[in-house]
Amino acid sequence: MKYFPRLWICLFLFQYSYAQNGMIVFQTDFGLKDGAVSAMKGVAMNVSNKLQLFDLTHDIPPYNIWEAALRLEQAAPYWPKGTVFVSVVDPGVGSQRKPVVLQTRNGYFFVSPDNGTLTLIAQQMDIESVREIDEKLNRLPGSSASYTFHGRDIFAYTAARLAAGKIKFREVGKLLSPQVLTLHYQKPILENGLLRGTVSILDIQYGNLWSNIPSALLKEAGININDSVHVKISNDSKTMYEGTVLYANTFSAVPEGVPVSYLNSLLNFSIAINMGSFAGKYNIESGPAWKIEIKKRE
Amino acid sequence: MKYFPRLWICLFLFQYSYAQNGMIVFQTDFGLKDGAVSAMKGVAMNVSNKLQLFDLTHDIPPYNIWEAALRLEQAAPYWPKGTVFVSVVDPGVGSQRKPVVLQTRNGYFFVSPDNGTLTLIAQQMDIESVREIDEKLNRLPGSSASYTFHGRDIFAYTAARLAAGKIKFREVGKLLSPQVLTLHYQKPILENGLLRGTVSILDIQYGNLWSNIPSALLKEAGININDSVHVKISNDSKTMYEGTVLYANTFSAVPEGVPVSYLNSLLNFSIAINMGSFAGKYNIESGPAWKIEIKKRE
Amino acid sequence: MKYFPRLWICLFLFQYSYAQNGMIVFQTDFGLKDGAVSAMKGVAMNVSNKLQLFDLTHDIPPYNIWEAALRLEQAAPYWPKGTVFVSVVDPGVGSQRKPVVLQTRNGYFFVSPDNGTLTLIAQQMDIESVREIDEKLNRLPGSSASYTFHGRDIFAYTAARLAAGKIKFREVGKLLSPQVLTLHYQKPILENGLLRGTVSILDIQYGNLWSNIPSALLKEAGININDSVHVKISNDSKTMYEGTVLYANTFSAVPEGVPVSYLNSLLNFSIAINMGSFAGKYNIESGPAWKIEIKKRE
Repeated sequence: MKYFPRLWICLFLFQYSYAQNGMIVFQTDFGLKDGAVSAMKGVAMNVSNKLQLFDLTHDIPPYNIWEAALRLEQAAPYWPKGTVFVSVVDPGVGSQRKPVVLQTRNGYFFVSPDNGTLTLIAQQMDIESVREIDEKLNRLPGSSASYTFHGRDIFAYTAARLAAGKIKFREVGKLLSPQVLTLHYQKPILENGLLRGTVSILDIQYGNLWSNIPSALLKEAGININDSVHVKISNDSKTMYEGTVLYANTFSAVPEGVPVSYLNSLLNFSIAINMGSFAGKYNIESGPAWKIEIKKRE
Repeated sequence: MKYFPRLWICLFLFQYSYAQNGMIVFQTDFGLKDGAVSAMKGVAMNVSNKLQLFDLTHDIPPYNIWEAALRLEQAAPYWPKGTVFVSVVDPGVGSQRKPVVLQTRNGYFFVSPDNGTLTLIAQQMDIESVREIDEKLNRLPGSSASYTFHGRDIFAYTAARLAAGKIKFREVGKLLSPQVLTLHYQKPILENGLLRGTVSILDIQYGNLWSNIPSALLKEAGININDSVHVKISNDSKTMYEGTVLYANTFSAVPEGVPVSYLNSLLNFSIAINMGSFAGKYNIESGPAWKIEIKKRE
Repeated sequence: MKYFPRLWICLFLFQYSYAQNGMIVFQTDFGLKDGAVSAMKGVAMNVSNKLQLFDLTHDIPPYNIWEAALRLEQAAPYWPKGTVFVSVVDPGVGSQRKPVVLQTRNGYFFVSPDNGTLTLIAQQMDIESVREIDEKLNRLPGSSASYTFHGRDIFAYTAARLAAGKIKFREVGKLLSPQVLTLHYQKPILENGLLRGTVSILDIQYGNLWSNIPSALLKEAGININDSVHVKISNDSKTMYEGTVLYANTFSAVPEGVPVSYLNSLLNFSIAINMGSFAGKYNIESGPAWKIEIKKRE
C-alpha cells in the first residue's frame, strides 16, 4: 500500500514531463536549395528513427523574425498537442541571444533562438515555462568547433532528443522566467468606431493582405457581411492605400480586378483583388511598420 | 452455418469500402512560402498519427486547373493503389462548385473541388463512383466560420479521415452521378497521316514541351526512332513554331542548341533543345489553347 | 553442431549485405514544380510502405554535377549509417554513362549515374565497392519503353528495393573496379604560407562564399580567430575580389555591410558580408573554375 502514492507521483510526473508525440515541424530561412535543412533532418533521424518529420516553411525571408513569428501562429494550432516546433531564423547566431525551448500551456514545444520569433505564439497559447538550452548537455557530439550552424547542432538536435523522449523537458537546461523577447506592433483595438491594427502578413501566392484584426472585433464594430468599409493602409506615416471595399463571403462577390475584404483562414480581416494582386497593385508589405485602419461606411 | 454468408458479405464490403492504404498525397497552388500546406498536414496528423503524408506539388500556377489535372495524371499511377490524393486549386472557393471525392475503378481516391481538376484522371483511370463531401459531417470541428480555407477545413480533413479509415467512402456524402466536370481540349487523333493534339504541359525545369500524343499513335503514323518529323505549334490560330526535328532516343543525338523530339516519361511525344530551352526560345506555353500537329517527313 | 559455422556465416553475410536502414534521401535537378519527384516517391512506396522518404534538395541547377557532388558531401554524413541516397543530375541520360550504386566504407549507399556526382563523397567517405545497376533485373516493370526518366524507372526503383531489403547489394548488378568518375578541382593545399583552394559553393540564401579549405589547414598556416587575412578570388585567370578581411566567430564582429571570414557548418573557410551578399556584390560563382587564395596578414 505505501508504494501507491509514490507510483502515482511517478505517473503524474511522467505524463507531465513527457507529453511529446514524436512529431517535429521545422521552420527556417535557409531555403531548400542547399543541404542545410536535410542535414538538420539527418541529425534528428540519427537521434531516433521513430520520429516523424514535417515542415512549416523554409522560405521565411532571410532574417525576417516577424514573419517567422507569424507563420508559427498561423500553423501551429492545427498540429497535435505535444508536437515540437523548431524555428531557426537567427540573424544573431554566434552573439548573445539565448537558445530556448518554450513549453506552452496547451502542450506544444517551440525550440528557437529567443529573438522575437516567439512573440505571437506566446500571446496566442500562453507560456507554461521557458528553459535555456544548455549547450554543454544538448549539442551534437563533435560539433563544438562550428560557430554558425546552431540550427543543426543545437536546435535540431535538442528538438529531436526532446521529441523522441531521450531527454525530459527539464533536461533542456535551466529554467528562465516565463517570458520571451517580444516584438512591438499595433495590437487590434476598437476606439470610437475606428478599428486599428497591423498588416500582419501577405498571402504571397495571391497578393492578399492579412491584418491582425479578428472577426470578433469587426462584429463589435457592427461590421457585417455585405457592408462596405473604409480602409486606410499606411507605412509608418505614409498612406499607401485609402478606399472603400465590400466585406464579403467570397471573392466573386465583386467583379474581377476589384478589391474585396473578407475573413482569412485565421478569421482575421483581409483584403484581396478578385483574380488579382492587391499587394502588388498598391506596393503593400507587412510587419510592425505597416498599420491598417477600418471604419464602417454608413 | 447460417452466419457464413453474412460474414462473407461483411468481409467483401469491408474490403471494397476500405481499400485505403494510409497514404495521402497533397497538391495545391498555395506555394510553400507560408503555413497553409503545413496547417493542412497538421489537421491530417491530428486525425491519425499513423498516416503517411507526401506531396505532389504545391507550385501549380495560381488558379491553373488544367495544370492541376495534368500533374495528377502524371504522378498518380506510380503510387500504390488505395492512396488518397488531395488537390486544392480552387478559384471558385466559396461559390457553388461541389467538393467531391472520386473513387477510380483501379482503387485510388481523389479529393478535390469538382471544377475540372479531375478531367484527365477520370479519363485515364475510369470512374468507379463520385460522392459530394457533406460539409455537415466532414468539416474540421470549430472551423465553420472560415469561408476561404476549404483546403484545410474540408479537403484535408476529409482526405485524412478517409485515408485513416475513420470514415468509409460511403460516409463522405451523397452519391452523385458517376461523372466529373470536364475541360475541353484536343484529344490525340491521327487523320490522313497528320497527328493532332494538345501541348499538355511544359517540363518547366528544362523548357521542354510535352504533348498528349502517345507513342502508340506515333507508331500507327509510321514514325520511328531516327525519322524526321514536321512539327507545327499554334496558340489558338497563331503559329508559334514550325520546323523539322529529329525523333530520337536521346537529346545527344543532335548537336547542342538544336531541337529534338522524343518520348517523355509518360511515353508522349515531346520536344526539347539539347542543353537549351525550347519553350523559352519560341515562347511556347501550354493548356487547351495550345495545339500541336505532327507529320512524318519522307 | 556441424550447422553452427554455417549459421554463423549466414548471420555474418546477412549483417554485411543488409545494413540498409529503410531510409532514402532524394536529390535531383528536377525542381518541385511538376510531378517527377512525386512519381519517384510513389515508385518507392510501391516497393515497400515501410520506407521512410526524405529530401536533400531538388533545386540543383539543371545539369550542375559539381553542385550535386557538393550537396551530397554537405548533408550525407549527418544521416544514419545505412541510409540510401539517390542523386539524379544526369545530362547524359540515354547515353553511355553507367548507372551505379556506391557503397562507402562507413556504410552509406549512393545511387547515381557515374558522371562525377560521386567525386566528393568518394573522397570523403572512401569506397567499399561500386556496382553497375543491371537494368534487366532492376528496372520498374513495364517501363522499358521510357528512355528518358531513369530517375524514376531505374534509380528510385533500385534505391527503394535496396533500402527495403528486397534485394541485397550484390544483386544490384556486376561489381566494377572500386572507383568513380572524378571531377578535377584545386584541392586545399598550403605552400610557403599561402593557402590555395576552390570556391566550392555559394550559401545561396545569404550570398556567402564557401571554400574547400578546412580549419585544420588554417591552423597549420597560423591563422587564428581575430586575425586579418588577405584573400584573392579568381575565375580562371581573372581576379574577381582581392582584399583584407577579419577572420571571426560571428558576423556581428564587423559592422553591417563589411566582409567577414568564418568557418561554415562544414568547418571550411568562408566569406560573408554582415547582413549582405558577398557573392552578389562581387559577382562570385562557384565550381572548379573558381579559385581562392588566402594569406595571413601580419
